Amino acid sequence: MDLAEHDARARFAAATVAHLATADEHDQPHVVVTTFAIEGDRIVMAVDHKPKRTQNLKRLRNILHNPKVAVLVDHYEDDWTRLWWVRADGAARVLEDQADRQEPVRMLQDKYGQYQANPPDGPVIEITVTRWTGWSGAGQ
Amino acid sequence: MDLAEHDARARFAAATVAHLATADEHDQPHVVVTTFAIEGDRIVMAVDHKPKRTQNLKRLRNILHNPKVAVLVDHYEDDWTRLWWVRADGAARVLEDQADRQEPVRMLQDKYGQYQANPPDGPVIEITVTRWTGWSGAGQ
Repeated sequence: MDLAEHDARARFAAATVAHLATADEHDQPHVVVTTFAIEGDRIVMAVDHKPKRTQNLKRLRNILHNPKVAVLVDHYEDDWTRLWWVRADGAARVLEDQADRQEPVRMLQDKYGQYQANPPDGPVIEITVTRWTGWSGAGQ
Repeated sequence: MDLAEHDARARFAAATVAHLATADEHDQPHVVVTTFAIEGDRIVMAVDHKPKRTQNLKRLRNILHNPKVAVLVDHYEDDWTRLWWVRADGAARVLEDQADRQEPVRMLQDKYGQYQANPPDGPVIEITVTRWTGWSGAGQ
């Protein structure tokens, strides 16, 4: 069954990881698993450490070329009536200035103890969600 | 550290769910969670039941327009040194004929007990992987 927007957003917010899909200039989709924090219709995530390899920058290069993204949170159980997922479609931008990164990094530190001692020091991705879509099985 | 291809493929094969990223004709990325089975460089997945809504067909419509896909399998733990992920980039096609669906559906039934009583009756997505990429944290 479809989830109401407030339910979809609440399930999304409570999840530990999400999957971020982007696409490059050759229409090649890309997908990564990521930590994140949300506030209203704003999702933030960060590159943990300054990437040293081109590989690590793929999601950032894609967003600079094409800001459209999709972010999925989902729940799996062997009882397939209990599956659910929530997808956020939106537009992303990359924040590299220290002033812009400050609040998103604090949001991530509030959510993840692991970031408290070691705050992410790479670029932040900020997504403005334009659509929340969610579904759950009959048993959920 | 980067994973060797055989290690990446073995971790991928053993996972229960994967995330499939596609992109539509407006460069809008899409991402879904899905069951799957693999054999060599071939990944198969199925739409569980004949979709009744346009929504459900988005991944199929995207592939018909643009066969490029990325599929991610990943492992999360609170101990971030134990994270790992494997990504398969490749080209997808949609199999709707009963003759073409037969073997993929059998592969899915061999992997998932849930499919034995209720075989997926929707279209099958078949992906030919052109690149395996994987990474694991220091503790894995």
